[in-house]
Amino acid sequence: MEVLETVPLHAQAQVQGATSSSMFSIDAVIALCVFFALLSACIIIGHLLHGNRWANESITALLLGLLSAGVVLLCTKGKSSRLLSFSDNLFFLFLLPPIIFNAGFQVKKKRFFKNFSTIFLFGVLGTCISFCIISLGVFWLFRKLGVTALGVQNYLAIGAILSATDSVCTLQVLSQDETPFLYSIVFGEGVVNDATSIVLFNAVQSIDFSNINGLIALKLLGTFLYLFFTSTALGIAAGLLSAYIIKTLYFGRHSTDREVALMMLLAYLSYMLAELFDLSGILTIFFCGIVMSHYTWHNVTESSRITTKHIFATISFISETFIFLYVGMDALDINKWRNAKASAATSIAISSTLLGLMMIGRAAFVFPLANILNFTKRSDSEKIVFRQQFIMWWAGLMRGAVTIALSYSEFARTQKTSAKDSALMITCTLIIVLFSTVVFGSITKPLIEAVLLRHRKPAVSDATDIPSLEDLRLLFVETGDQGDQGNNEMPKRSSLSLLIRYPTWTVHYLWRKFDDKFMRPVFGGRGFIPFVPGSPTSTADEGPENP
Amino acid sequence: MEVLETVPLHAQAQVQGATSSSMFSIDAVIALCVFFALLSACIIIGHLLHGNRWANESITALLLGLLSAGVVLLCTKGKSSRLLSFSDNLFFLFLLPPIIFNAGFQVKKKRFFKNFSTIFLFGVLGTCISFCIISLGVFWLFRKLGVTALGVQNYLAIGAILSATDSVCTLQVLSQDETPFLYSIVFGEGVVNDATSIVLFNAVQSIDFSNINGLIALKLLGTFLYLFFTSTALGIAAGLLSAYIIKTLYFGRHSTDREVALMMLLAYLSYMLAELFDLSGILTIFFCGIVMSHYTWHNVTESSRITTKHIFATISFISETFIFLYVGMDALDINKWRNAKASAATSIAISSTLLGLMMIGRAAFVFPLANILNFTKRSDSEKIVFRQQFIMWWAGLMRGAVTIALSYSEFARTQKTSAKDSALMITCTLIIVLFSTVVFGSITKPLIEAVLLRHRKPAVSDATDIPSLEDLRLLFVETGDQGDQGNNEMPKRSSLSLLIRYPTWTVHYLWRKFDDKFMRPVFGGRGFIPFVPGSPTSTADEGPENP
Repeated sequence: MEVLETVPLHAQAQVQGATSSSMFSIDAVIALCVFFALLSACIIIGHLLHGNRWANESITALLLGLLSAGVVLLCTKGKSSRLLSFSDNLFFLFLLPPIIFNAGFQVKKKRFFKNFSTIFLFGVLGTCISFCIISLGVFWLFRKLGVTALGVQNYLAIGAILSATDSVCTLQVLSQDETPFLYSIVFGEGVVNDATSIVLFNAVQSIDFSNINGLIALKLLGTFLYLFFTSTALGIAAGLLSAYIIKTLYFGRHSTDREVALMMLLAYLSYMLAELFDLSGILTIFFCGIVMSHYTWHNVTESSRITTKHIFATISFISETFIFLYVGMDALDINKWRNAKASAATSIAISSTLLGLMMIGRAAFVFPLANILNFTKRSDSEKIVFRQQFIMWWAGLMRGAVTIALSYSEFARTQKTSAKDSALMITCTLIIVLFSTVVFGSITKPLIEAVLLRHRKPAVSDATDIPSLEDLRLLFVETGDQGDQGNNEMPKRSSLSLLIRYPTWTVHYLWRKFDDKFMRPVFGGRGFIPFVPGSPTSTADEGPENP
Repeated sequence: MEVLETVPLHAQAQVQGATSSSMFSIDAVIALCVFFALLSACIIIGHLLHGNRWANESITALLLGLLSAGVVLLCTKGKSSRLLSFSDNLFFLFLLPPIIFNAGFQVKKKRFFKNFSTIFLFGVLGTCISFCIISLGVFWLFRKLGVTALGVQNYLAIGAILSATDSVCTLQVLSQDETPFLYSIVFGEGVVNDATSIVLFNAVQSIDFSNINGLIALKLLGTFLYLFFTSTALGIAAGLLSAYIIKTLYFGRHSTDREVALMMLLAYLSYMLAELFDLSGILTIFFCGIVMSHYTWHNVTESSRITTKHIFATISFISETFIFLYVGMDALDINKWRNAKASAATSIAISSTLLGLMMIGRAAFVFPLANILNFTKRSDSEKIVFRQQFIMWWAGLMRGAVTIALSYSEFARTQKTSAKDSALMITCTLIIVLFSTVVFGSITKPLIEAVLLRHRKPAVSDATDIPSLEDLRLLFVETGDQGDQGNNEMPKRSSLSLLIRYPTWTVHYLWRKFDDKFMRPVFGGRGFIPFVPGSPTSTADEGPENP
């Protein structure tokens, strides 16, 4: 089985002196050494570059990966650059889950759920629009460019593959404190978009395209909705299970090692179970992370809290660096370029066509959807101004590891499509990822500074947080700010009028009441009790997210 | 490459409905699900059994592994039990390093180095004696039992394989607070013994036995010493490098994620580098752990300290549980038993012969060496009484994952020896590991209670700690207990007379002076400054070990 066949490497290196007393193959050991050394170097260089205008950790890792692949290529005299080759199995089984779990675990839940409607509108509907536009564009343009061997299934898959954005660069630049609304939207949309495009990709894979009829779009929608809701439910169930087990079993005598181990194992188990049932593991583990940070995290010891908060972030950080290094190393794989057999001109033509489609596809939903949302807002301060819309558009132009992994999954294994066009699609995906990460990525910081920071006088432009705080205070004033006491004597009338005036906040408030009354007694969690000074959450926002 | 070919599984399962939209093979996903569910079950059951007289986490994991293999065997109607098969690569590359690193990281350094001479005498010389006796015994007895296809190299390898003890069971029973001396000896010997037997095994592998002459023993000794010292030096160098990097780079602006990631990566890198240079990774990563806990750990933020302290323990804990589960699952592999082609009687005869040799081999060094050590001690209270010697003997009778992994490395791959006898050796190793872990392991707790706790009136029996504390006070009184001040005006005479009276403590004291003067300024670390209340080390013992 090739679940982890990646560690293979340096295939043609001549191993001299076979009297090695080591128990492993020398190739594997060399590759692992180089890889861990490069990872350490990425972290150190990334730290030194901290605050640099043009570079960030992703770009550093990508360039370092390219560089080392170049060195290997020179050392083997152009025969091979394969110190490591990208395996989508390694990516989906071991690298992506911790990143997404950490995203859920550290998400500022209050902000995420406050902007829930916006995030889901962009993440789900937006990704679907982008998917349709790219698929249609590819369908229409590819024949003109001489790519003829692909079928409907391939076109739809390309749409899903190129709809998966990578907002790491943008998030490294945006500040959570200065522009909380934008940060929460870009972050939330990034996660939901990953999940949506993977779900779309899976839906495309599972549908039989041999008899195309009018029902195919409906089928696709049905599969999509089914995957979406069952995956979410599974993730929530797994999170609640972990909260229940730890609350019930460890009452009285806590053991940090067991608690941390159980949280890690159950989170991963939820991901694998989702894959087993052909659901979307990404969505499952994301919601598992949210539930764990809301309930489980409050049932464990103080040191478990600090440990989980940091270790999930660390593992996610290592995985991210690993992925960019990995993509960089893989990009110079000489065999891949040879298999494509396309002239440089064709590759560039196709890549720029796809890049153009991506930009149009994203523009086609960001600006319209933002304006539709603006119609629903009462006050000017809540509206998404054009500058913010531009940043949201830009944040989704980079393509990263999910795109590469999906592209491999579609084109590296199937014998369905012609080998030449498949290889061409993989090299074009690589070009798009490298170009967008390095070029778009490095101008992100100056661009955002130019667009956002220069025009910061009217702090209102990013002030959707301010009315929210007022709303919260309003709610508290009206209900007496009693928290746990007096939940029952709350006037029903007030809730109803609030629901009309502040729909999001009222839903949030009603959820809090439900949480306090039914969920917390069973699953633990801090729920609605006041902030305890000195606890690891130094903001009033509940959960393990960083301040 | 088969670095991680283990994830394979359930080889003959008939996968129905190949229209799976999942990106992975269904077999891998099922196996991972079952495995993570079993791991979680082990942790929960282990927690519930906490305090039970006969069971512990290792035995639970082993039995759970056996049980699930049995279920698979029944489901496939006896065709296969291979949900997972044991891979020595997976073990040596990913499971053993965190366990040994954590052992070094959490070791009570003061106690470890105080009992250094005893630990090394038992761990190195003792293991070598056991190795010789088992090798000679096997050489002499195997022909009589009908095993004829093995050569000198195989006999020596068997000696090394069966010298690797597994003291997990004993350590779970011994209390660090009640019997600190015994705990430190059993723990220290366990780690040094693992390293020694792996180094011996590697030395045996690397020597050409085709022309046997008188120099072979000398050659073996030379290789052994070379491996021992270079590996230790590499580990210390890696640890110091990490301390230097973190101290230099992160001065002023700390980032927990980067610090933790860098510590993990550099520790693992030291292990892989040792393997690359054909040294002993185990020794390297053990000393890397010690140096990291002495220097690096003091250079990082408070939250990094708590995180590293717990996460290394958690990963080590998961790896240990994983290994026992894994061994249990592997033990019922039907093909292995079929390949051995031996009758049950032969297997049992060979296994009990080997068990007997192991017990004799261990007795042959524990009792003589303990009595030799007793001769060098001045006071009665420092002597190792017979009851303690018995526990030390017993603690080394269990065999575990290292034995299995070395046995696979020797007999599963080489085509040198006859397939039949190789398969026989693997099954016998499995029998020994299962028998010793389950039978010896479950009577360890009652036995230790009977031997130690019933006779606890003369607290002296385990009181080697008491004079040590007096020695420490004596040293402090004579040198003025000034710590950092007045290091230069220390009377040389006093050091000399102390060296004669309290050799270990004087070496320790001189090392402290050297550490304070030269090492700490460069590499950081708490060194000899007084205990800060509220820091995560709640004992006066420096380092991240648990109180």
